[in-house]
Amino acid sequence: MEKRARVLIDCEDAKGLVYQIAKVFYDRGLNIDTNREFVDKQNKRFFMRTIVTGVFTIKELEDELQKISPKDAHIRVIEPRDKKIILLVTKESHALGDILIRHADGELGADIECVIANHNTLETLVRRFDIPFFHISAEDMSREAHESKVMQCIKQFDFNYIVLAKYMRILTPTFVKAYPQKIINIHHSFLPAFIGANPYKQAFDRGVKIIGATAHYVTDDLDEGPIISQDVIPVNHRLTWKDMQRAGRDGEKIVLSRALSLVLNDRVFVNGNKTVIF
Amino acid sequence: MEKRARVLIDCEDAKGLVYQIAKVFYDRGLNIDTNREFVDKQNKRFFMRTIVTGVFTIKELEDELQKISPKDAHIRVIEPRDKKIILLVTKESHALGDILIRHADGELGADIECVIANHNTLETLVRRFDIPFFHISAEDMSREAHESKVMQCIKQFDFNYIVLAKYMRILTPTFVKAYPQKIINIHHSFLPAFIGANPYKQAFDRGVKIIGATAHYVTDDLDEGPIISQDVIPVNHRLTWKDMQRAGRDGEKIVLSRALSLVLNDRVFVNGNKTVIF
Amino acid sequence: MEKRARVLIDCEDAKGLVYQIAKVFYDRGLNIDTNREFVDKQNKRFFMRTIVTGVFTIKELEDELQKISPKDAHIRVIEPRDKKIILLVTKESHALGDILIRHADGELGADIECVIANHNTLETLVRRFDIPFFHISAEDMSREAHESKVMQCIKQFDFNYIVLAKYMRILTPTFVKAYPQKIINIHHSFLPAFIGANPYKQAFDRGVKIIGATAHYVTDDLDEGPIISQDVIPVNHRLTWKDMQRAGRDGEKIVLSRALSLVLNDRVFVNGNKTVIF
Amino acid sequence: MEKRARVLIDCEDAKGLVYQIAKVFYDRGLNIDTNREFVDKQNKRFFMRTIVTGVFTIKELEDELQKISPKDAHIRVIEPRDKKIILLVTKESHALGDILIRHADGELGADIECVIANHNTLETLVRRFDIPFFHISAEDMSREAHESKVMQCIKQFDFNYIVLAKYMRILTPTFVKAYPQKIINIHHSFLPAFIGANPYKQAFDRGVKIIGATAHYVTDDLDEGPIISQDVIPVNHRLTWKDMQRAGRDGEKIVLSRALSLVLNDRVFVNGNKTVIF
Repeated sequence: MEKRARVLIDCEDAKGLVYQIAKVFYDRGLNIDTNREFVDKQNKRFFMRTIVTGVFTIKELEDELQKISPKDAHIRVIEPRDKKIILLVTKESHALGDILIRHADGELGADIECVIANHNTLETLVRRFDIPFFHISAEDMSREAHESKVMQCIKQFDFNYIVLAKYMRILTPTFVKAYPQKIINIHHSFLPAFIGANPYKQAFDRGVKIIGATAHYVTDDLDEGPIISQDVIPVNHRLTWKDMQRAGRDGEKIVLSRALSLVLNDRVFVNGNKTVIF
Repeated sequence: MEKRARVLIDCEDAKGLVYQIAKVFYDRGLNIDTNREFVDKQNKRFFMRTIVTGVFTIKELEDELQKISPKDAHIRVIEPRDKKIILLVTKESHALGDILIRHADGELGADIECVIANHNTLETLVRRFDIPFFHISAEDMSREAHESKVMQCIKQFDFNYIVLAKYMRILTPTFVKAYPQKIINIHHSFLPAFIGANPYKQAFDRGVKIIGATAHYVTDDLDEGPIISQDVIPVNHRLTWKDMQRAGRDGEKIVLSRALSLVLNDRVFVNGNKTVIF
Repeated sequence: MEKRARVLIDCEDAKGLVYQIAKVFYDRGLNIDTNREFVDKQNKRFFMRTIVTGVFTIKELEDELQKISPKDAHIRVIEPRDKKIILLVTKESHALGDILIRHADGELGADIECVIANHNTLETLVRRFDIPFFHISAEDMSREAHESKVMQCIKQFDFNYIVLAKYMRILTPTFVKAYPQKIINIHHSFLPAFIGANPYKQAFDRGVKIIGATAHYVTDDLDEGPIISQDVIPVNHRLTWKDMQRAGRDGEKIVLSRALSLVLNDRVFVNGNKTVIF
Repeated sequence: MEKRARVLIDCEDAKGLVYQIAKVFYDRGLNIDTNREFVDKQNKRFFMRTIVTGVFTIKELEDELQKISPKDAHIRVIEPRDKKIILLVTKESHALGDILIRHADGELGADIECVIANHNTLETLVRRFDIPFFHISAEDMSREAHESKVMQCIKQFDFNYIVLAKYMRILTPTFVKAYPQKIINIHHSFLPAFIGANPYKQAFDRGVKIIGATAHYVTDDLDEGPIISQDVIPVNHRLTWKDMQRAGRDGEKIVLSRALSLVLNDRVFVNGNKTVIF
């Protein structure tokens, strides 16, 4: 039976790769629906995302592509299907709300397995959508103890990504290492400007004329992971930092949802500390 | 001797095209430097722009690609080299000036063969850059008579594109047909809003909150040709239409220069009344 | 007791107005917190929005300002307080959802009296937020008959604005006239480009490189009312019109919510077919 | 004889200021053409820019305003008239070129007294516009020795602003202190991101999705002065840092010219390390 899949290839660059890969598709009678490639010349890495249609099994196609690719090749053949995500939040509802509405609409491209929060502020909102909500307070507890409880909770679920939808806590390296390339964060500034706490206050104090938001993969270094999406909003001297925070929320939620859409559609490759986005 | 060329293919879509084309490059030992493809599914057309490096002759490569492509295929193998352009202007200096500065800097990617104007306002500016300037007044003359003089002038030069850098006259179908897909215009609005005369006045009267500029190929229908590039500038109630015009100039010159850069780098395919841009 | 109010003045321009108005505030010992003015020179109209704090009664302050202003002056002294709105929707959830989330968060600046829809698609979503939902189908009914039922429903509520959050029906002049300067619409294009039905399809067919959204007051002329807010989103040849529609939704909801915030904060003056926004 | 002036007031905030100032204009029979105010509540400072028309002398009006204002008030009554500027450049032509074209067009709002460069690369371009060019090489010289030569050169001219149009040298505190609030710089990043050398290389290495440019007053702290204007340009993984540099130039020149226009029109107040812009 005819099907459709996303073929993702990420490997050392080599001569003839496009030909070799196209030959695999051609020999099997597969149709190339869309095709994007990129070669990172600095690091000599090749990235390719192709949508193919035709008759094939995932396993066979992966094996065949592996055969003609450099040894280090990371090859994935993925059928388009909803992913599963877990949301971590604190008190603010805008990023979470945007995701909930898209989810309710069937537009998100993911099932929300649960929402975990270190405050119970958002419980009512989440329950309106019949989604499991876990309040895991961090009060009177070491960072490690709290995270271990969160990780216990996460363990119950099958998931592709953990989305920090304004989760206002710093994660330990232990937590981050447990979910490599699986944690997406929205940072409320135009990184690398205003790393760390209260970027709107920092932006106000610096007197900038534009504020921004950045969605990125979380790595060990705070706010230093590969950037997926960024956007900006003009501001002026009339805005207090609270006004900037309010104005910035629209940017935050849109940037996070856009990044999420890219990730859930398998359009993002992590390339060292950067991303390649097709 | 090793060289580098842009391969542009534009044809009816067909199965196996990417493979067939990649095979030609592979069999000749050519390296694919960058590669972009697009299939217009509505019209079943295939577009591809590849930069190849290696040892080859233009003619042979074109012939070989022609052989494996659908009959209607439009195939061009182009060595990156400065193009030649002719500028048509009226009185405003901003778009012209931007091009002159880039040209003087060696950043334009084109030689300016001459500037033709229906007023002599810009003669001093053009002469500062030692570029031939022709003042062909349209006064007391039919549109046809004036255009015929302009075409006489153009005839002396070898050129790839005619750039209307704020040429404030409507062209006849005769003129347009003489230079198919060779005339680039900057229209001072966000097309298709405000077609026709004085779009800033129209924008002011309509009370819009954003104004724009559009660079496009010129076709028979006024302001209806394939769009290459667009950009916008926020405005508000405090601006008069003269203020909008002034503010809009930055957008106009940047949009035109960006479109010109795309066209001169052979990144633009005309696809019916639209463009495909790699 | 000290209070705070927005003073809105809209009148024929006259010499000494700023002085006369400032004198009223000064003589009463009121503090000017913020102050914005604008003179439309073309139409010789004066607009002013001042936030004052101090001890006063609304009625007295309005009367006193009326006395020193030109006869046609439209003067409003408004205490900042949540407004009441009614939402009209059809099937799409993004604009409605954005408003519901802001409302649930206490960020909207308005109470939602009810949601009226010509389809029942959004009933579940609205009920999740415990907001009255009225499904008034338009099937097998004249436009007039349907509108009369909608107006019956509206009549039960006290409200400041009717918000068309993707209400996909054309309103009759009767309906529009019943609520002057009280109906806010989001149009899914960068007006005045693509007036009318399916603007995304129109944008796709025209091959534009930027799409937009426009929030405006509804007047008799379809899509011709005073514009409050506009924004744009870049697109390219790879997007189908369905993709454009999807991408455009983020713009639509943000533009509508921004316009709503401006209107609910009494920052918008209607000035003929335009707006003055402070 | 009737004239027109910009009245700029910058002082400690106080009750009744708007009234007192409006009274001065009113008593003298002056017309308020446009009027903008702002109160920085954090620092309790009042800013006002009014355009008045009528019969008055600068000196008398300034004195009268001084009388009714707090003691620390900085009051300027300025007739709109071209300012004088000195340009400092290094090798790149885009920012300089943009200013030269506007100047040639009579659109700049300033006379260019001279261009001073630490390389002679731009001499030909500047001479095309008949503007004095001084090549003051910094080779084999201490920073102090070079700056002292530059200051000698500057001394010959009367000027309002020194514009660093991509002057790629760090200024000493001595130089900066000599021209307080008179030096405008364009920094080729979205400050405070990428302070210091080669911001495009930094942006490339960080993998950002947007790059920017910032025009600011120069103070002792490198890249830390009050920001006047900022703008951004989207980028992606396909751009090398050289590509980003090229793409960024359009932003740089537009942001600098916009900042220059604001400053030359007396629309910018310096407020500590920030700006208030009307």
